[in-house]
Amino acid sequence: MFIAADWGTTNRRIYLIDADGAVIDTQRDDRGATSVADYPAEVAAIRARFGDHPLLLAGMVGSNIGWRAVPYAAAPAGAEDLAAALDEVAPGVFIVPGVSCDIAGRADVMRGEEVQLLGAVASGAVPPDALLCQPGTHCKWVELTGGRIGRFVTAMTGELFALLRGHGLLAAQLTGQVADGPAFRAGVAEGARRDLAASLFAIRAAGVLGLRADADAAAHCSGLLIGADVAARLEEAGGQAVHILSDPTLGGLYHAAVAELGGTAHLHDSQPAFLAGITRIRELAQ
Amino acid sequence: MFIAADWGTTNRRIYLIDADGAVIDTQRDDRGATSVADYPAEVAAIRARFGDHPLLLAGMVGSNIGWRAVPYAAAPAGAEDLAAALDEVAPGVFIVPGVSCDIAGRADVMRGEEVQLLGAVASGAVPPDALLCQPGTHCKWVELTGGRIGRFVTAMTGELFALLRGHGLLAAQLTGQVADGPAFRAGVAEGARRDLAASLFAIRAAGVLGLRADADAAAHCSGLLIGADVAARLEEAGGQAVHILSDPTLGGLYHAAVAELGGTAHLHDSQPAFLAGITRIRELAQ
Repeated sequence: MFIAADWGTTNRRIYLIDADGAVIDTQRDDRGATSVADYPAEVAAIRARFGDHPLLLAGMVGSNIGWRAVPYAAAPAGAEDLAAALDEVAPGVFIVPGVSCDIAGRADVMRGEEVQLLGAVASGAVPPDALLCQPGTHCKWVELTGGRIGRFVTAMTGELFALLRGHGLLAAQLTGQVADGPAFRAGVAEGARRDLAASLFAIRAAGVLGLRADADAAAHCSGLLIGADVAARLEEAGGQAVHILSDPTLGGLYHAAVAELGGTAHLHDSQPAFLAGITRIRELAQ
Repeated sequence: MFIAADWGTTNRRIYLIDADGAVIDTQRDDRGATSVADYPAEVAAIRARFGDHPLLLAGMVGSNIGWRAVPYAAAPAGAEDLAAALDEVAPGVFIVPGVSCDIAGRADVMRGEEVQLLGAVASGAVPPDALLCQPGTHCKWVELTGGRIGRFVTAMTGELFALLRGHGLLAAQLTGQVADGPAFRAGVAEGARRDLAASLFAIRAAGVLGLRADADAAAHCSGLLIGADVAARLEEAGGQAVHILSDPTLGGLYHAAVAELGGTAHLHDSQPAFLAGITRIRELAQ
């Protein structure tokens, strides 16, 4: 029996996991790294709720905005590498390291995603050599090689969308719903031109000239950001299928974008992947 | 004798121009379209200062955030088209229309830039068939054909930089100076990969991993945004020289980016171009 936490910047999810890898109890709250100052007190509260078990923590809890900045494991990195590099920050409390890589002069880092990725392989959901995609504020694209995390690249696709919706010229137009449909698909096709700064201004121009209803602008904008991201990755992937680890909503948009651009995608739920990954790391560390 | 105003969103510049096109008097202030409610009162104040002459106004004063939304002239449009479409908003007060275009499904608009563009031809600074670039918050790239404004595209390059500096993940890193140099040039080369959302996240990763001093991050980020913009346009331009209309600082960065990516650029001061353009439109309207 152990306690696992997927402890991010804003939220965290805690699981009590038995010897067979089954979830006995779980809790989700907003005590993310930016809300917590006294980590030993948090651990005491978690143990009061879930029992006096070992804890495995993953995510931004292991960064300089969390409990302690745990050094990154360098890619290529598998579950055995992460298990060997667990950082015991308090008695029986271990932080899983993130992973770094530096390919073609473009450095990259992840914290938290590595557990899902390795879990997707451990559970058999994806093959050991595969291209994985984790959409989000910072979308990760990861090449698994022999079941280990190899080259990866992060695109701040979700963050750009949030910046454009929250501030600046387009904000007033981007209030509509985002869903797959003609406006989203047209955005994906435009995004594949990989000319983002120009495609974005065209949203404004289309509004001014009455060529597209502003109700469709958010879906179009989301499509073009996701389309630019997907087009760049498909070009590198050379026909490989994309395994998307995500919740169904955002994952569905990426799935649609990959299909629109002629690729093949498979959608996997990210939560079971996390559980499989953290259980595998726990097994290897014992 | 007439009064010309380059009347933008935030600032405006007013010129008193004699029959030979020479500037007799000028004033620059922050009475842009977003600060002005009573335009007749503004005109009265301008005439009290510069004399009771006809006024030619260009820029966002002719938009729905200005005095009146003057319909766009459709590209291709030359000085004679704009002169024929002047909108007399008050006795002796004329607004120059902006220009719109819709190429390959990507619509675009300009207001104010058209006067500089046509002035650069009228003064002989650029040939009548040329590729022009006006850097800024919304960077315009314009094909002049037979001295008229043809196809054009706007990239919100400067706005993206402002959004990233003001908000979000990279803001804390982007506090340094922006100038041409190794960090800027490396950014231009990275930007030419046209994979903006990924290149931007790499700025964060390089900081976290200590691979680049944060003092260089702003120059690198500016380089990659300008590089992505320039690379997309050079690809379309097919070896054509780029004529940059700008102040020397921002124009110098675009000049450096064009050179870094193997193109040829000429830098022209934008203010004389505005004066030549507005004088030409005034002549044609009389």
